Amino acid sequence: MRIVRCTYQHQPTYGIVQGDMVCRLRAGSPFAGPLEPAEPLGRLDELRLLPPCEPTKIIAVGRNYAAHAAEQQVEAPPEPLLFLKPPSALIGHDEAIILPVESRRVDHEAELVAVIGRRGKDIPREDALQYVFGYTCGNDVTARDLQQRDGQWTRGKGFDTFAPLGPWIETEISPADLRVLCRVNGQVRQEGRTRDLIFDIPFLVSYISHIMTLEPGDVIYTGTPAGIGPLEAGDVVEVEIEGIGILRNPVQEQTRC
Amino acid sequence: MRIVRCTYQHQPTYGIVQGDMVCRLRAGSPFAGPLEPAEPLGRLDELRLLPPCEPTKIIAVGRNYAAHAAEQQVEAPPEPLLFLKPPSALIGHDEAIILPVESRRVDHEAELVAVIGRRGKDIPREDALQYVFGYTCGNDVTARDLQQRDGQWTRGKGFDTFAPLGPWIETEISPADLRVLCRVNGQVRQEGRTRDLIFDIPFLVSYISHIMTLEPGDVIYTGTPAGIGPLEAGDVVEVEIEGIGILRNPVQEQTRC
Repeated sequence: MRIVRCTYQHQPTYGIVQGDMVCRLRAGSPFAGPLEPAEPLGRLDELRLLPPCEPTKIIAVGRNYAAHAAEQQVEAPPEPLLFLKPPSALIGHDEAIILPVESRRVDHEAELVAVIGRRGKDIPREDALQYVFGYTCGNDVTARDLQQRDGQWTRGKGFDTFAPLGPWIETEISPADLRVLCRVNGQVRQEGRTRDLIFDIPFLVSYISHIMTLEPGDVIYTGTPAGIGPLEAGDVVEVEIEGIGILRNPVQEQTRC
Repeated sequence: MRIVRCTYQHQPTYGIVQGDMVCRLRAGSPFAGPLEPAEPLGRLDELRLLPPCEPTKIIAVGRNYAAHAAEQQVEAPPEPLLFLKPPSALIGHDEAIILPVESRRVDHEAELVAVIGRRGKDIPREDALQYVFGYTCGNDVTARDLQQRDGQWTRGKGFDTFAPLGPWIETEISPADLRVLCRVNGQVRQEGRTRDLIFDIPFLVSYISHIMTLEPGDVIYTGTPAGIGPLEAGDVVEVEIEGIGILRNPVQEQTRC
């Protein structure tokens, strides 16, 4: 099942993708009841898609592919290296990534994102996938210069528009071995497979839940494969994950009055 | 005006403190209408207080008092050093701080917290205080060993119960020169004045809003003065801020099945 959030009659509305159409999700929220379609909302390619869920927190994992840690000239960490992105950074499919004036280098980071389906704390690793509602594509957009200058990554990864998420949540897929691609203007820049994650999804969900209670709609950006690189105004960046779909975002300069 | 959130008939409810009583806030939310009292909810000392707002993000500032940077043997930063705490870490007045089994050293950090009253982005410094709804007391509880080991501060500052906030929001106070105290079991451990903040409230609100859109109810933990130190199970820690009040939390061991 593919769950979207879209704007319908000026209201954020959850829907189910059915072929090239979207139907309203009868329960209102995918975390509130069965995933049953109600009336049609419109054609998928004509609806404005929003980030497909509303997280209370966005947890992200640094250096979770060995090849990416190597290109950053850092060791892969002995435990998951966690950071948070603010919900104000979320944008959906087709929304623009805005390059902030404070940064001279903003990079793409294509990532598989796990969406939490129910509240959990101290989740055993063997039960972890029961707490995952589904998977989507994410771009952990990063102002590399500010990340390095600050030490803490909050500013470099926290600007508005720095958390593209979507286009939808795929609920029927195994995350164990999916191809993760990033293209800029049609050219492949990043490529990896989730089987190369240092810490896999069950490990991450369990590990994080021993620190922070997870809530429905919370998301985990699971780390980026090798090949990160800069974005320029006018670029179009795509994150494609096998079996999920393509998250596409144009890139724009910031205009500040 | 003092705004609380409390449990009333099993529901989280916003109230206004009137003497030793609390009345329901007529508008439902302090960000939705005028601050007018409706019917009484009960005596202040008999109601269970919750964190006094519901932030979409908790922004915190590291090393914002020179004396604290010095005791940590680090330089005061040239720009505000931002990090995020997850909303799952929030607790209210009188709720217990739980010491996680993963850490051998959990510290108190008493802080003035600014509560945002309306949505804002790219706020000029001279307008910043118009976006602040009021002030409350916060404790930026920190697993010092994990903070140092991880490099990123997310885990060390992100455990459940590591963001005590309250007891209420004081809306009629200037943040320019308030005494900030931390007591453990009645003994003063931290003492500072907000006039010694390296980056003051208007600067912080403006700076942060150029990165992240601020939302009503978002909070900014503004940094801790010198004197941080460890908490032990059985301790009672109090953050007292002049003109606001006392945020008190007992400290407990973690019990994990």
